[in-house]
Amino acid sequence: MLTTAWTRRHVISLADFLPEDYDTILQTAASFSEVLTRRNKKVPTLQGQVVTNLFFEPSTRTRSSFELAAKRLSADTLNFSPGSSSLSKGETILDTAKTYLAMGTDIMVIRHKQAGVPQAIANEMERLGTNVRVLNAGDGQHEHPSQALLDLYTICSLLDPKNPRVDLLQGQKIAIVGDILHSRVARSNIWSLTAAGAEVHLAGPPTLLPQHFKEYAQASQQNELELERKLYVHWQLEPALENADFVMTLRLQHERMAQHLLPSLREYHQRFGITRDRLKLCKPHVKVLHPGPVNRGVELNSDLMDDPELSLIPQQVSNGVAVRMALLYLLGGGR
Amino acid sequence: MLTTAWTRRHVISLADFLPEDYDTILQTAASFSEVLTRRNKKVPTLQGQVVTNLFFEPSTRTRSSFELAAKRLSADTLNFSPGSSSLSKGETILDTAKTYLAMGTDIMVIRHKQAGVPQAIANEMERLGTNVRVLNAGDGQHEHPSQALLDLYTICSLLDPKNPRVDLLQGQKIAIVGDILHSRVARSNIWSLTAAGAEVHLAGPPTLLPQHFKEYAQASQQNELELERKLYVHWQLEPALENADFVMTLRLQHERMAQHLLPSLREYHQRFGITRDRLKLCKPHVKVLHPGPVNRGVELNSDLMDDPELSLIPQQVSNGVAVRMALLYLLGGGR
Amino acid sequence: MLTTAWTRRHVISLADFLPEDYDTILQTAASFSEVLTRRNKKVPTLQGQVVTNLFFEPSTRTRSSFELAAKRLSADTLNFSPGSSSLSKGETILDTAKTYLAMGTDIMVIRHKQAGVPQAIANEMERLGTNVRVLNAGDGQHEHPSQALLDLYTICSLLDPKNPRVDLLQGQKIAIVGDILHSRVARSNIWSLTAAGAEVHLAGPPTLLPQHFKEYAQASQQNELELERKLYVHWQLEPALENADFVMTLRLQHERMAQHLLPSLREYHQRFGITRDRLKLCKPHVKVLHPGPVNRGVELNSDLMDDPELSLIPQQVSNGVAVRMALLYLLGGGR
Repeated sequence: MLTTAWTRRHVISLADFLPEDYDTILQTAASFSEVLTRRNKKVPTLQGQVVTNLFFEPSTRTRSSFELAAKRLSADTLNFSPGSSSLSKGETILDTAKTYLAMGTDIMVIRHKQAGVPQAIANEMERLGTNVRVLNAGDGQHEHPSQALLDLYTICSLLDPKNPRVDLLQGQKIAIVGDILHSRVARSNIWSLTAAGAEVHLAGPPTLLPQHFKEYAQASQQNELELERKLYVHWQLEPALENADFVMTLRLQHERMAQHLLPSLREYHQRFGITRDRLKLCKPHVKVLHPGPVNRGVELNSDLMDDPELSLIPQQVSNGVAVRMALLYLLGGGR
Repeated sequence: MLTTAWTRRHVISLADFLPEDYDTILQTAASFSEVLTRRNKKVPTLQGQVVTNLFFEPSTRTRSSFELAAKRLSADTLNFSPGSSSLSKGETILDTAKTYLAMGTDIMVIRHKQAGVPQAIANEMERLGTNVRVLNAGDGQHEHPSQALLDLYTICSLLDPKNPRVDLLQGQKIAIVGDILHSRVARSNIWSLTAAGAEVHLAGPPTLLPQHFKEYAQASQQNELELERKLYVHWQLEPALENADFVMTLRLQHERMAQHLLPSLREYHQRFGITRDRLKLCKPHVKVLHPGPVNRGVELNSDLMDDPELSLIPQQVSNGVAVRMALLYLLGGGR
Repeated sequence: MLTTAWTRRHVISLADFLPEDYDTILQTAASFSEVLTRRNKKVPTLQGQVVTNLFFEPSTRTRSSFELAAKRLSADTLNFSPGSSSLSKGETILDTAKTYLAMGTDIMVIRHKQAGVPQAIANEMERLGTNVRVLNAGDGQHEHPSQALLDLYTICSLLDPKNPRVDLLQGQKIAIVGDILHSRVARSNIWSLTAAGAEVHLAGPPTLLPQHFKEYAQASQQNELELERKLYVHWQLEPALENADFVMTLRLQHERMAQHLLPSLREYHQRFGITRDRLKLCKPHVKVLHPGPVNRGVELNSDLMDDPELSLIPQQVSNGVAVRMALLYLLGGGR
């Protein structure tokens, strides 16, 4: 395992991540990917430590991925779900977190439908002088850093399987298509991809794009990295796809129709659905990503999803375990 | 552990199982039964492998049995349940399975209320060229092979505890009583018991028996084993019980009343409930089985269930863990 | 680990616990507390044994605590919850327990909304001649022994961290405030604290106090220990707090309002809520306990809960894991 300069205590947002942070994660994930090709995929790194999944918003897929990552590092895992919990008895979120702290949790993986909850819990853990580490597994429409990091790893390890690193993204054009406005996945990806040097093109219906695009640009300027972030927004699909190296599609939430932000799934697909025909606008080697679960025939055509030449979706899921092992390892001070 | 000629990649249905397949499972289960008498009941066979329980239809009992079997083989386990899952977000069943494949699942244990789902997933795993093994834990009214195999093991290990094997069933008369028509347990048991040489007598109300009994007979003829299967159907209880060595009772689903297939539980019990009196028709050493959970006083009288001289129900549950360890071991290529 | 005279097979009620029983638990918990300060908090004591959490009444907090205790002793754990269970299919509670017995459970941790269920299951386990141990994790309004034991450990280890033992309670005044009548926590605590030598003062609204206080006194007389138990009941808060060394607050269930036992939470807080002002009646070193989850601003003021000089709540949760490890260890015949 590499010697790393990693000093972060929590992973809540990618807004201030530096290229070297990304590189540390990519290299650590690469070494765990190697472990995952063995018959015995377990390593004793976090033996005797406790990883608690505090999923206030239920999720099977992300929780399973974190749970498996923790088990493969030999950690013990606890799963909290709100269904039968103290929350319905009036306990505050911070008190729930402090209960799991007191039980002996070392790393908390937190999902909540409200933005800011993981940060609030991390702040409380620091205020109390604890050594607990917090990992944001998705908070409202804010961020979903582990998803963006697995996307980054999927792209970089495709570009150079032996040595995935962020400078590989220089000159790559990446389209992100769909409901950008409500997507924590998009938000995290915008931070990581633009910081890593890619040219990022957002495309979607105007109602599902940030109304004040400037918020992103301003945020970039405020960022102490002073990177020149290459971020473009389009109300049409075509300019985003043109000569793209990668196309990231986002999940369309059905509730957007009820909110009158979209007329119908069919109309969405007609204008922004990814089809084989439309992919001809991209580079010949273009690859398609999706964070899942996919609405087949809405965000992208069913046959594209199943085409191993085009779709990186299975790799995203597999890499998700390796990247989450890397995050738990780095936060857990793995030895 | 024995050297085995086991070559099956999945266990979906017992329709084409050969006597040597059953014998391999019985012998493997016997060696795990021995392990389960020790204080430390764990073996490192599947260390570092992942067994995922994909229970689209919820079940505590069967899932716990598989989960414990996997843990005793030192596998890591993941549990998928539909409650808080991607399914409610529109993901297809195959996409859910492929997600768990991509995470690194080695063996999938699948339950679904629709017949054919485990086979469809196994087909997809093969089509994709993966090495994932599929175990059917109950699909609709089709099959429940692990239940039939633990029933088989319970009977054969009673007949010869040191060397359970299917030829012990030669000449044994086994009655299966109840709702045969809707029972995946009955269907799997009919395959295993008739292939193994027992004489099988089905008894139940006409509305709960296969309307076209020929389907079973025809299926037998199509079976390449060319076994002469001894299968009989009765609309009365008595001819099935007469001189029986074993009586398998089936769980009566309460929904059968709503479907007007049964007038009442009481009437069912009067005509087909197993009582001490009725068991006098059987051989003196007769034993009673039930896959659980039991409606006490409906399928069989409460006192029979608690009589260790008569009931094999606790052994069925115990043997369930050993048989499921054997199945996971054989599918996992245990070493 | 100490040599112990522990001979109990089950922990259902503290009514007949002797001071030496408490001391054995306190000393065992103390040695596990030491284990929990290490980086690797696992010990191999219960390797290969199965601890099943049969939580007929759902609970995240207590189940997590028992689950973590079991995992840190290297046991395998199974979780039964009633949601998707055989219970909805008409299975009796005893049959559910016998199913988990037959699967190979070594220790059952049982919670049920009805008093007496853990005892009934323990009786059945004995009647069947099994070696299964039963731990009551809360039964109706009867008892919650592990909570009372962790409270005891929290108090005694504060009084002498190196050597927690019950004779430290001699002369300590402990107030228990709130809904005594419906509280299994209070009931268990009354047994342990009075047997251990403390002077216990109950305070609460008359509707939430035992109507026949004599039941406690009579029970004490029946107790073969012939201890002179020092138990007092007050309808006002002040005499209970006066010169108290410890104040145990109880959770107020919201349903008590619907039952017309309380006018409002606000009125409850005005009369029985613990405030910094009211604590001035107590000894200067007074500490406050609460079994959680807390209704902030009802049972006690929010700022008190967060004051590490006053609140023992985090210690209660932490000690819960050590005490439950001790109980599992002692019942499991740990070596």
